[in-house]
Amino acid sequence: MRPSGRELNEMRAVSIETGFTKHAEGSALIKVGDTHVLCTATIEDRVPPFIKGSGLGWVTAEYGMLPRATNTRMRREAANGKQGGRTVEIQRLIGRSLRAGVDRVALGERQITVDCDVLQADGGTRCASITGGWIALRLAVNKLMKAGDVISDPLVDPVAAVSCGIYAGQPVLDLDYPEDSEAGVDGNFIMTGTGQLIEVQMSAEGSTYSRDQMNKLMDLAEKGVAELVAAQKAATA
Amino acid sequence: MRPSGRELNEMRAVSIETGFTKHAEGSALIKVGDTHVLCTATIEDRVPPFIKGSGLGWVTAEYGMLPRATNTRMRREAANGKQGGRTVEIQRLIGRSLRAGVDRVALGERQITVDCDVLQADGGTRCASITGGWIALRLAVNKLMKAGDVISDPLVDPVAAVSCGIYAGQPVLDLDYPEDSEAGVDGNFIMTGTGQLIEVQMSAEGSTYSRDQMNKLMDLAEKGVAELVAAQKAATA
Amino acid sequence: MRPSGRELNEMRAVSIETGFTKHAEGSALIKVGDTHVLCTATIEDRVPPFIKGSGLGWVTAEYGMLPRATNTRMRREAANGKQGGRTVEIQRLIGRSLRAGVDRVALGERQITVDCDVLQADGGTRCASITGGWIALRLAVNKLMKAGDVISDPLVDPVAAVSCGIYAGQPVLDLDYPEDSEAGVDGNFIMTGTGQLIEVQMSAEGSTYSRDQMNKLMDLAEKGVAELVAAQKAATA
Amino acid sequence: MRPSGRELNEMRAVSIETGFTKHAEGSALIKVGDTHVLCTATIEDRVPPFIKGSGLGWVTAEYGMLPRATNTRMRREAANGKQGGRTVEIQRLIGRSLRAGVDRVALGERQITVDCDVLQADGGTRCASITGGWIALRLAVNKLMKAGDVISDPLVDPVAAVSCGIYAGQPVLDLDYPEDSEAGVDGNFIMTGTGQLIEVQMSAEGSTYSRDQMNKLMDLAEKGVAELVAAQKAATA
Amino acid sequence: MRPSGRELNEMRAVSIETGFTKHAEGSALIKVGDTHVLCTATIEDRVPPFIKGSGLGWVTAEYGMLPRATNTRMRREAANGKQGGRTVEIQRLIGRSLRAGVDRVALGERQITVDCDVLQADGGTRCASITGGWIALRLAVNKLMKAGDVISDPLVDPVAAVSCGIYAGQPVLDLDYPEDSEAGVDGNFIMTGTGQLIEVQMSAEGSTYSRDQMNKLMDLAEKGVAELVAAQKAATA
Amino acid sequence: MRPSGRELNEMRAVSIETGFTKHAEGSALIKVGDTHVLCTATIEDRVPPFIKGSGLGWVTAEYGMLPRATNTRMRREAANGKQGGRTVEIQRLIGRSLRAGVDRVALGERQITVDCDVLQADGGTRCASITGGWIALRLAVNKLMKAGDVISDPLVDPVAAVSCGIYAGQPVLDLDYPEDSEAGVDGNFIMTGTGQLIEVQMSAEGSTYSRDQMNKLMDLAEKGVAELVAAQKAATA
Repeated sequence: MRPSGRELNEMRAVSIETGFTKHAEGSALIKVGDTHVLCTATIEDRVPPFIKGSGLGWVTAEYGMLPRATNTRMRREAANGKQGGRTVEIQRLIGRSLRAGVDRVALGERQITVDCDVLQADGGTRCASITGGWIALRLAVNKLMKAGDVISDPLVDPVAAVSCGIYAGQPVLDLDYPEDSEAGVDGNFIMTGTGQLIEVQMSAEGSTYSRDQMNKLMDLAEKGVAELVAAQKAATA
Repeated sequence: MRPSGRELNEMRAVSIETGFTKHAEGSALIKVGDTHVLCTATIEDRVPPFIKGSGLGWVTAEYGMLPRATNTRMRREAANGKQGGRTVEIQRLIGRSLRAGVDRVALGERQITVDCDVLQADGGTRCASITGGWIALRLAVNKLMKAGDVISDPLVDPVAAVSCGIYAGQPVLDLDYPEDSEAGVDGNFIMTGTGQLIEVQMSAEGSTYSRDQMNKLMDLAEKGVAELVAAQKAATA
Repeated sequence: MRPSGRELNEMRAVSIETGFTKHAEGSALIKVGDTHVLCTATIEDRVPPFIKGSGLGWVTAEYGMLPRATNTRMRREAANGKQGGRTVEIQRLIGRSLRAGVDRVALGERQITVDCDVLQADGGTRCASITGGWIALRLAVNKLMKAGDVISDPLVDPVAAVSCGIYAGQPVLDLDYPEDSEAGVDGNFIMTGTGQLIEVQMSAEGSTYSRDQMNKLMDLAEKGVAELVAAQKAATA
Repeated sequence: MRPSGRELNEMRAVSIETGFTKHAEGSALIKVGDTHVLCTATIEDRVPPFIKGSGLGWVTAEYGMLPRATNTRMRREAANGKQGGRTVEIQRLIGRSLRAGVDRVALGERQITVDCDVLQADGGTRCASITGGWIALRLAVNKLMKAGDVISDPLVDPVAAVSCGIYAGQPVLDLDYPEDSEAGVDGNFIMTGTGQLIEVQMSAEGSTYSRDQMNKLMDLAEKGVAELVAAQKAATA
Repeated sequence: MRPSGRELNEMRAVSIETGFTKHAEGSALIKVGDTHVLCTATIEDRVPPFIKGSGLGWVTAEYGMLPRATNTRMRREAANGKQGGRTVEIQRLIGRSLRAGVDRVALGERQITVDCDVLQADGGTRCASITGGWIALRLAVNKLMKAGDVISDPLVDPVAAVSCGIYAGQPVLDLDYPEDSEAGVDGNFIMTGTGQLIEVQMSAEGSTYSRDQMNKLMDLAEKGVAELVAAQKAATA
Repeated sequence: MRPSGRELNEMRAVSIETGFTKHAEGSALIKVGDTHVLCTATIEDRVPPFIKGSGLGWVTAEYGMLPRATNTRMRREAANGKQGGRTVEIQRLIGRSLRAGVDRVALGERQITVDCDVLQADGGTRCASITGGWIALRLAVNKLMKAGDVISDPLVDPVAAVSCGIYAGQPVLDLDYPEDSEAGVDGNFIMTGTGQLIEVQMSAEGSTYSRDQMNKLMDLAEKGVAELVAAQKAATA
């Protein structure tokens, strides 16, 4: 029934290549099916003005998409003179989600910027960015700990994300682009390795959904995130 | 326990003044406690390029805040040269939410723009905007129907929104600003008059929440939205 | 002869509601006929760089119009990415006019920003902004004096403004929108409570006027400003 | 008493070099003392959308200042990414003033853009721009008439402008920069060759003025404009 | 003597992976040492306004760099609100260079946009972009020819580019970042497979060079481009 | 054969008027045929952040063109909200070229900004800007030396620039606009008074050129620059 032939509760194949670029303190190319996102983490010894002197660290994120990551070419945001509304919304979500998994006292007064750049898109780029961004963050923090700059691990419980939706009347896990563009309801579920929730966003355009449907999507999401967390652990072991 | 002395499941006082401005096809000043939002609906006989000729209508929204709506003055976005990320995120949410309650075939090929401008802010401005925006939309559509431009009512089931969160460890309904700035978890629940879900956004910053907590907030939201829908009906009767 | 049925030298009804919003140090909703402007005054303990350390205070103003304040919806300036030429011109005029009524030594090294946001427009928004802006300023300064932060009153002589023009060949006082859009000549007269001039702007587009006509408009303006100053005093007594 | 040693009612020396650049349909370098403005007029066979098909012509203006036209270097507006408020205000004034002297029916459905670029500034650049801009316009219209594209002269009565102000307590004609920066009140007077008024702008910052003072400045302005119109005629004879 | 231990006339290792992304009509990841650029070519059935109806095709290019492609993170251009001067200069060069190798009559009235996005930078990114961009262009044109949309091959003679410079007093081929940041003179040489020149840019900052030195760099460039053209051919055979 | 009737190796007439504006520390109007550029040099006692405290000076340049400097009017860059790619490229070239002729240690920790504004364009504006910009720089530095602020002359060897190209199959010196718009290949040659090279940019669009042709253009450029340097010396003697 799904265009890809997957089971309703089946994720796409996930692969993670760490160290994809050499300059960043942490970097990974994550592939969730045909969605490929390059994530890098940059450590800087400064924090935003609003927490200066607080002893707390900060994690923020930026998101971008190459112009021809998609089926038809999109205008480059730098040429447009601004980041679009969708971009801004996504990068705020990524930053907020990653921060929820960070002990900012343990991190100490420094900032880590996670850049998520979509090289190829096939649905679910924001979820892949969160899942891959966590890996880049993990690798960067490992470097800080190895150097003795951070003593207690600020990343206790991993963060990963998956989208679920109602496609052709059925709840399905990990929407790809053909499903995403048809789905009446779709949601993004950001969770931790221990099954706690960080952020849930479920939206319908031109229709509505029931609490029961919501619960079914939550069940699928729990399965998906568990698999993604396993893949993260394998990649950074 | 709440700074305002309200019960855990108690909304702030809601008042709605329709026809607050005279030019718009629909207008209302909604007050949810000390949060005051002026909502206007503008009908235009054109639609965005991507649905031209489809026979479908479109509903979109814009959001703004007067510089001194808040406790300290914020720089005017027009002077900044762009709408901030928060503004963009909110106005996309308002538009998406209102569209979910609209039968775009019945509306016909025209656009209604709902402007939500916060005159005074005390938490929950996006939810008040959706609730008040629906009223402005309702009034504008009434005008279309009275004029015979629209035959079948495109607004079948009303749309309203409320925020809930975990404040001082307790699930509470309709966060005001002092609660919002302290809450570990807060969510926005956009629902219809018949209790269906349109959008759920629950986010935690620097912490996480369980499915059980999520369900408790959902219960509160259902109560709040039911009260808001009653107020909408009273105001537009 | 006038569309509204007013006498040639008759102002529209003026009403002033002080304290319209709660956060600002001073706020007022001024209604001059169907032109409604929300004015707020914000006090900050800093001044622009060019007077830092001089001991002088500063008063500045910003002006905005809600998108549907007018008969047809205007694009939001924040969405356009800049303030239009008309906006910039008006807010510079408001700031300059208010400053002319302020003893900046008595004010001391602090800045007051007066925001004038038009909720509904029917001609004469810049004049209503100046008249209402002065009230917000007055209320904010009262607060400073009450707190003992300012000893000698920096607002000696009130400032108000009215427009006059030549409509259908006749000099008329306080143009409303139907008159303004037809007038061959129109002028804005900013004056003090003692009848001194602060700024006069009289312009013709596609025609010209004589010194004699100019003097007749000045006479009308003196009458109008006197009435506005009386209304200001009544509102802030 | 004046820094330049001029009489109270004495203009600076005025010189006009027509044909200063070769591409424009009309061009002139006007020097009013040390204020030098290059004015060019460009004819285009198109009009702004709002008068398309009306048969009416349009005249508009743009204003700029070279970065080192002034005593200290100003940042280039193109580098700033926008025209400043002062620039926008001035170019709107120039366009409005020139249009007041144009019979737009006689001009026919075409647009003339007058560019006024200040090469060197010493006070009064907006007035010199209007006076010089009229010459560029005159030359461009001459070309249209010579070619038979325009039959009846659309420029019946010339337009010129001068500033006057109260300097050291005295009304003076044609303020230069040292006077302008000290003057308590200064005004710009745009008039025609027959002594009609097009626009009067008199403003005080931090002080006020009486009707009597205003009338004295008007008298000076009439004298100055008469001399400027004579110079325009001599230059374009 | 070179930091990398290379001979004076030795290129870095070059590798080319075609088909790196799936949506673009042509794509390649080119690696010149540690400089990695993802190049995609997009075909569109429209041309810029200035050649509409001429029957000629157009090739244009855009260039970007991921924020952490470099040793320290650079601010994202989309967040800055504009493309920097360096970016604009480079993408104009890439477009101009590729066009020089294209028979625009044979291409027919369509546009090909070549996007060059630097994933990792180590000097010479503009040259790698041109060399890799040509491959993406080659693959896209192959697709057009295979589909019969283009009959005669518009890409007769391949285009490639290399940088040379004077490092530590010696002319060297293919500068990497450590060399580039120290070189007194550096040049970019864009040439064809038959040794013709397309563009030469040699610049010195804070020093100068002789014609004799220029000729030595030209000799090196001829060697380097010949090797790059061979690699291009191997990759697209 | 050349539209202007010049010999293949003949420059246009060059005239230089120093002191064209009075405020700048150095200023000159350079005319190369019908290309007229106003160059000013501004001295400031501050340097860009990246050399603060180094004791080194900095020379930078900005470039602009009046809207009607060209045959058809161009939109003003300040109104466009940004400098175009061509402008940015040119002003970077001017700055780089002038710096190559400056001993930044001798200059001391100060910045000189050279503004080059094209009043009238007929080809070769960037070369005229460099040649004229050097004169403005020379005059400004003379002032510094006269005042004893700089002891040892930081401008040892003058900098000038000329364009050459292949027009109608022939190498020609100093392209004017009719030639430039037809030339298959054109180059800009920036050199010193002693014949050293600073920057060479030779580009072909839609064709290529040989090393032999390049050498012929270099020969012409050497002749042209020698004549320009002589003119510079005469003007500043």
